Amino acid sequence: MTGHELLNPGAWRTASLTDDSAVIQALLDVEVAWVRAQRSLGLVDDAVVRVVADAGSAAAYEVGAIARRGESGGNPVLPLLTDMRSAVAEHSSNAAEALHRGLTSQDVLDSALMLVASRTLGALRGSLLAAADALAGLADEHRGTVMVGRTLGQAALPITFGLKAAGWLGAVTDAVVEVGATAASLPVQCGGAVGSLAAIDAMVPGEALRAADLLADELGLSSPGRPWHTDRGPVTRCGDAMVRTADVMGKIASDVLLLSRPELGELAEPVAEGRGASSTLPQKRNPVLSVLIRSVAIEAPHLGALLHAAAALAVDERSDGAWHAEWSTLVRLLARVSSAGSQLEELLAGLQVNATEMRHHVDDAGPAILSERLVAAVRNLPEAADIPDDLVGLLKQGASTGKVRDLLRSRVPTENLSDGELDRLLDPTTYLGVSDVLIDRALERHRALGSGDRR
Amino acid sequence: MTGHELLNPGAWRTASLTDDSAVIQALLDVEVAWVRAQRSLGLVDDAVVRVVADAGSAAAYEVGAIARRGESGGNPVLPLLTDMRSAVAEHSSNAAEALHRGLTSQDVLDSALMLVASRTLGALRGSLLAAADALAGLADEHRGTVMVGRTLGQAALPITFGLKAAGWLGAVTDAVVEVGATAASLPVQCGGAVGSLAAIDAMVPGEALRAADLLADELGLSSPGRPWHTDRGPVTRCGDAMVRTADVMGKIASDVLLLSRPELGELAEPVAEGRGASSTLPQKRNPVLSVLIRSVAIEAPHLGALLHAAAALAVDERSDGAWHAEWSTLVRLLARVSSAGSQLEELLAGLQVNATEMRHHVDDAGPAILSERLVAAVRNLPEAADIPDDLVGLLKQGASTGKVRDLLRSRVPTENLSDGELDRLLDPTTYLGVSDVLIDRALERHRALGSGDRR
Amino acid sequence: MTGHELLNPGAWRTASLTDDSAVIQALLDVEVAWVRAQRSLGLVDDAVVRVVADAGSAAAYEVGAIARRGESGGNPVLPLLTDMRSAVAEHSSNAAEALHRGLTSQDVLDSALMLVASRTLGALRGSLLAAADALAGLADEHRGTVMVGRTLGQAALPITFGLKAAGWLGAVTDAVVEVGATAASLPVQCGGAVGSLAAIDAMVPGEALRAADLLADELGLSSPGRPWHTDRGPVTRCGDAMVRTADVMGKIASDVLLLSRPELGELAEPVAEGRGASSTLPQKRNPVLSVLIRSVAIEAPHLGALLHAAAALAVDERSDGAWHAEWSTLVRLLARVSSAGSQLEELLAGLQVNATEMRHHVDDAGPAILSERLVAAVRNLPEAADIPDDLVGLLKQGASTGKVRDLLRSRVPTENLSDGELDRLLDPTTYLGVSDVLIDRALERHRALGSGDRR
Amino acid sequence: MTGHELLNPGAWRTASLTDDSAVIQALLDVEVAWVRAQRSLGLVDDAVVRVVADAGSAAAYEVGAIARRGESGGNPVLPLLTDMRSAVAEHSSNAAEALHRGLTSQDVLDSALMLVASRTLGALRGSLLAAADALAGLADEHRGTVMVGRTLGQAALPITFGLKAAGWLGAVTDAVVEVGATAASLPVQCGGAVGSLAAIDAMVPGEALRAADLLADELGLSSPGRPWHTDRGPVTRCGDAMVRTADVMGKIASDVLLLSRPELGELAEPVAEGRGASSTLPQKRNPVLSVLIRSVAIEAPHLGALLHAAAALAVDERSDGAWHAEWSTLVRLLARVSSAGSQLEELLAGLQVNATEMRHHVDDAGPAILSERLVAAVRNLPEAADIPDDLVGLLKQGASTGKVRDLLRSRVPTENLSDGELDRLLDPTTYLGVSDVLIDRALERHRALGSGDRR
Repeated sequence: MTGHELLNPGAWRTASLTDDSAVIQALLDVEVAWVRAQRSLGLVDDAVVRVVADAGSAAAYEVGAIARRGESGGNPVLPLLTDMRSAVAEHSSNAAEALHRGLTSQDVLDSALMLVASRTLGALRGSLLAAADALAGLADEHRGTVMVGRTLGQAALPITFGLKAAGWLGAVTDAVVEVGATAASLPVQCGGAVGSLAAIDAMVPGEALRAADLLADELGLSSPGRPWHTDRGPVTRCGDAMVRTADVMGKIASDVLLLSRPELGELAEPVAEGRGASSTLPQKRNPVLSVLIRSVAIEAPHLGALLHAAAALAVDERSDGAWHAEWSTLVRLLARVSSAGSQLEELLAGLQVNATEMRHHVDDAGPAILSERLVAAVRNLPEAADIPDDLVGLLKQGASTGKVRDLLRSRVPTENLSDGELDRLLDPTTYLGVSDVLIDRALERHRALGSGDRR
Repeated sequence: MTGHELLNPGAWRTASLTDDSAVIQALLDVEVAWVRAQRSLGLVDDAVVRVVADAGSAAAYEVGAIARRGESGGNPVLPLLTDMRSAVAEHSSNAAEALHRGLTSQDVLDSALMLVASRTLGALRGSLLAAADALAGLADEHRGTVMVGRTLGQAALPITFGLKAAGWLGAVTDAVVEVGATAASLPVQCGGAVGSLAAIDAMVPGEALRAADLLADELGLSSPGRPWHTDRGPVTRCGDAMVRTADVMGKIASDVLLLSRPELGELAEPVAEGRGASSTLPQKRNPVLSVLIRSVAIEAPHLGALLHAAAALAVDERSDGAWHAEWSTLVRLLARVSSAGSQLEELLAGLQVNATEMRHHVDDAGPAILSERLVAAVRNLPEAADIPDDLVGLLKQGASTGKVRDLLRSRVPTENLSDGELDRLLDPTTYLGVSDVLIDRALERHRALGSGDRR
Repeated sequence: MTGHELLNPGAWRTASLTDDSAVIQALLDVEVAWVRAQRSLGLVDDAVVRVVADAGSAAAYEVGAIARRGESGGNPVLPLLTDMRSAVAEHSSNAAEALHRGLTSQDVLDSALMLVASRTLGALRGSLLAAADALAGLADEHRGTVMVGRTLGQAALPITFGLKAAGWLGAVTDAVVEVGATAASLPVQCGGAVGSLAAIDAMVPGEALRAADLLADELGLSSPGRPWHTDRGPVTRCGDAMVRTADVMGKIASDVLLLSRPELGELAEPVAEGRGASSTLPQKRNPVLSVLIRSVAIEAPHLGALLHAAAALAVDERSDGAWHAEWSTLVRLLARVSSAGSQLEELLAGLQVNATEMRHHVDDAGPAILSERLVAAVRNLPEAADIPDDLVGLLKQGASTGKVRDLLRSRVPTENLSDGELDRLLDPTTYLGVSDVLIDRALERHRALGSGDRR
Repeated sequence: MTGHELLNPGAWRTASLTDDSAVIQALLDVEVAWVRAQRSLGLVDDAVVRVVADAGSAAAYEVGAIARRGESGGNPVLPLLTDMRSAVAEHSSNAAEALHRGLTSQDVLDSALMLVASRTLGALRGSLLAAADALAGLADEHRGTVMVGRTLGQAALPITFGLKAAGWLGAVTDAVVEVGATAASLPVQCGGAVGSLAAIDAMVPGEALRAADLLADELGLSSPGRPWHTDRGPVTRCGDAMVRTADVMGKIASDVLLLSRPELGELAEPVAEGRGASSTLPQKRNPVLSVLIRSVAIEAPHLGALLHAAAALAVDERSDGAWHAEWSTLVRLLARVSSAGSQLEELLAGLQVNATEMRHHVDDAGPAILSERLVAAVRNLPEAADIPDDLVGLLKQGASTGKVRDLLRSRVPTENLSDGELDRLLDPTTYLGVSDVLIDRALERHRALGSGDRR
């Protein structure tokens, strides 16, 4: 593991996909794939491919030295290529010549970043699917678990925890779909020095764009049909998908953090040995997963904005600094969001729901939590007159359900409002709107994600 | 016109779509549409709709007073509703009752913001289409206009201005498509106080979600099938589309600014009376359109990030501050990007291309601009030996085409490289790769945008 | 009032300092001050000053038209100057000539922005001082009000509300000092077209920099001794001070929002007629001031970052877009933070503290809230052995104070721990560390802000 | 070297100050310093200090394992402390007990971050001082090197390169001062679990705050007199200083990039073996240092904004995610800006100035570059009449100096404008305003930085 990961707890979860070794591997994969593409074009033979492929394992390269030498040319492709070419040249001068032929360093670096993205998005999508599965279970199980619906921090109307979980599920489902679509559209970069594919065209006249397509195929990336050296949509679209996923996770984590405060006690993180320990308070169990997910959600918008700033500052046929600002930012964003995804999966798989405490707070909220319904119901009565004002007066005082019942009973004849109807009016479990339908819809969309489509 | 527009030159272009009056109008449109939806559900009659619709014009309301009174309840819906209800109540108590019935202020505000977005995106898409048309013309016209391709600010290989324009066109085409798709997906908000549609369900049992769909239809918004009070994807997706559009425009503006520097002189902004004047330098003609577009591109990523930050901080069933941070940010982003779109249209429609100066710089760059080709060509010759090193040495010294020709001629027999081939090698107009194919592809995509699909 | 203020509830509070009229007035003030500076240099006489000053009132200019015409030259100075010169020329051609002589539009616009900042910071500082006064009262009054100290949302140790208020006070005091220092250092801009003061030097050879100093004096701005056309420290320093102030306010608002949730009920916003009303829930009282302050705190970092991005992208002797991105951003930041300052003043002046509820939660937390102390105390006992483990076991189970007392009493002889000492150990009001000293220090710093120094 | 440094070329320059090992070392330094502070308070003896100090070297700990185990408790302090305590306990149980006694993990982590900042700022200040020295030399040497002053990318008036260098110097001098002041004010964190120093107060009644001061002394940090667990000014102030420094460097880098474009050719980066090489264009020499510095300047505002966002979201006595988002962000910002500082030092020490090319562009600009002066001069002549209009007409046509001279000579009698005066009017080297004074002032401020004050 490399990186400032000491200060990013949880980074280990996806470090193997995003650390410096993973980037080196992706860079090597691009160089190898390009030689394979040349073989498909008849430019080199299998032996050349073998020699190059044999030099294509990150383990054979010294990351630190390449990083250090990268400054000189402004990017790590040059020193890596030098080392790779040396390794290859020992076995075949043809292979050394074919290596990188016709490409520019941006082709390799951009394609490698897309490759890193592709691999990380795969893992992230798996985590999100697992989180969605957990949420589907919670939404269904807690259809009848009444809790306080809160707006601006204050009690508003009753909802169910099932509805809340369905809301989370809807957002996570969107994220699964978007992450999947983003992964499928990550494009190869192949334009040569200035995006005209001039050198490639000289190598294989009339087949340069086919060569680009072959490179995409070898790497499992999409073929955009044109270079995007200074049209950075592929980077910002990937970044935006990551930030949106982080937003979704942040919302859930914030809700868990609030609802697991001891004074609320409606939710709790899964218990794991040592998890949430404090350096000095032995009994304390901190909601660490949510805290760390939330920290990623706080960070992500800024990283996404940086990718846009870089895109907006693109110039010429290759940018003079804006491009360079993207690299580690995109990888950092991928690393942070994917590890948070893994944490979210774990959080939701073991989330503890305290239905009793939820109901307790509904009861504490009293009839005020039904004020919307009560006022509307009373207004429609023939004898309404000043009942609504008196009712609101009582509610503002925080009157009990009994007091409110007494007021209504004393002012509305039973022929207009039977005792049963009155009881129903005052029962929070009967003022849940279309919660059940919304849960059904969320479950339906979740099911449609398809099992075949999963990791 | 309202807003800090004095300090946003160009804001007047789309101010009527995004200023406070436009927002008031959108808020009123939502309230009126909701009463129309109630009519479709049989809850009110045509007379009620008429009375409400008659009170639905922004001109009848005092924007400043509503803005001031908005603080008390935390948003402008409450005071506007109070005034609208007063206006309506004079004619019909039924109408006053039907107004806003079952909605929450977030339903109205969110739907109104989507309406403002919808209207602004329509105008923006029109500007982008016009800009794309201009670019298509430039790309086609300048297929043969050779210029220096630049990377990291330095001369690299020759390209054509047609290829550069095609690159811009590709990005603008993406923006047209994305803005169109975004406009088509902007959703209505309709969830009631806590997203359960409880009050609406009480009004029209079993038809609450149909009511939401009817509201969407009335407003020309899409129907998301669920409330999104604290699932802010619709806002961030719209914001991201705006920022990506700004990125695309910023790239073009930066290129124009660079290429219209007097030492380059390859492009110039269209001339317009008074445009680009200086307060003290009478002859100066500043590239004002590009400058202002670039300023929007610098700003947009930060506004987009703020929308994500707000989304990531959503909590409960309505957020306690995060939601409030979105409103003017989204509208500001819409206002800025749409006015820049209008400026871009004007910029590109009249862009002046100086092909002579472009060619001049290619010639100034000398044979070094063909180094990639020359070295590759020489390497493949049977007598290569140390020619490549000598050639690179000459190129590093900035040798003239004649000197380079002499070297090659003296070292390579004509049977291996004829005079004609040598001349071709040294001719920058023959090292343009697949520029023409890339231009064709960009034009093809542009044509596919479809004339029927235009404003 | 102008601006997208409809969507910024609370903006009315300081709108007169930051709206378009205020900016126009500041621009005019700079032009008038420059003519006064010319009088001090003997270039013009009193009559000229009078004529120019008579044309120096914003009310005489049409904001909308100037905003619209501002695009042509890229900023609003040119059209305003045209109108002002026309107005002046009717009375004196000397005055018309003296107007703006030797300045560039950036001199006027930058100086005007600093003037707007200066005026707004004055108001903001007043609000912060009043907020600090309120906090000083709360800190002192609640020295003995024990409450739960919370970390990561969970109960940790007891603190007092006085300590929490002192913490807020310390941060607000920092903000007062910083806002004051920033206001005192806002510099005039005076460099002419390229920062060499060439035209001014031609007007008053050898006295150009004195002219700049005179302009600063007339405007009450500081004199930086050099132009800063593309050295944007003055803008970013002002912006950073605003963002830091917003951070401080955001922390307080978030705490109030959390602690005024009904399940906590430890704090409440001041009650005001109509404040916090809901569109449908009659009894609801939303913590609107805190919500709106928090929304500003969420927004401010992004506006501050934009100012830095613009500063970082400065080029040449005047920037080609980066400068333009600053204007409305700085003013928006000033407007948002100053109105939040006014809200904070009101929030803290009437903040309601529920000491009973605070104590109630301390009691609910049980002896676990003293675990740090208990474990440390037990560890030091000669008979420690396995007492700590047993104690921690009990605490993890959420045992009552009685249970914990019983354990300790049964295992530790009274000669090592008297009953009185044991009771003290279990009393949360005796484990407050140096809270009182920290409160004293905060109050001392607050007093040192000095009454003479206040608005 | 650790970190995503492969993708941050140049990071190696200051990696030893900011990588994971450096952070571990700082964490250990805080734990050791705290035991030293306890010795000063008489709580432990020298032997304990020795044992703890012996366990205080980062090399003895496995960074990767600690990073991985850090998730469980939410930060790396816990696992590091566990390992350190094991190491210490082998030699002394007293030492194991004294370790971390009374502190909370935030005390250690925050203090360690300040320590990392302190060390990095020291190196950065050295680089900036060296850069300032180089700039002072350039400013003085190029007092007479006339070049085009450019605004909005267009030629405006002549300046000297000395003035431009003096402008850069002024900004770098500000940065030196600010970085120095920031370094001097970095505070220790010492508040215990909830900022009341309760456990420390129990350890040393009445001396808890003195203990905090002792910890500060041991670490060479300042003593803030109060904990700042959720008052994050120290972090944002440090971050803002870094971003401002990046802004200053970004401006210089952007100017170098523009002026070293081949069509301008006024500046060039220092030549170094292999520096600026291209993967395919052998003769190309990319301005790599400037490119990489610019990329840091593009990135920094976003990292700074994230620190503010975290500060603004602080809650309770320790934040639930906002704090966690700061750690790696601050370190990344320190790492990026300090390595850019080192690059800037190298860039400026060897910057190549092409005075001939500068003068060439002034001449190319023709008399239009003096339009401000010419129009002002002509307006003051008794026979002005329509000369200004005719003059402007000529200038707009891009007339030569000869043509303009002819016009003026033909229209103004020599008694009003001698031939000598006319020649002077048309000589760009005599319209430089107070450039020399501004250079002197910049040099004076630079000298005042003081040699004793240097690294």
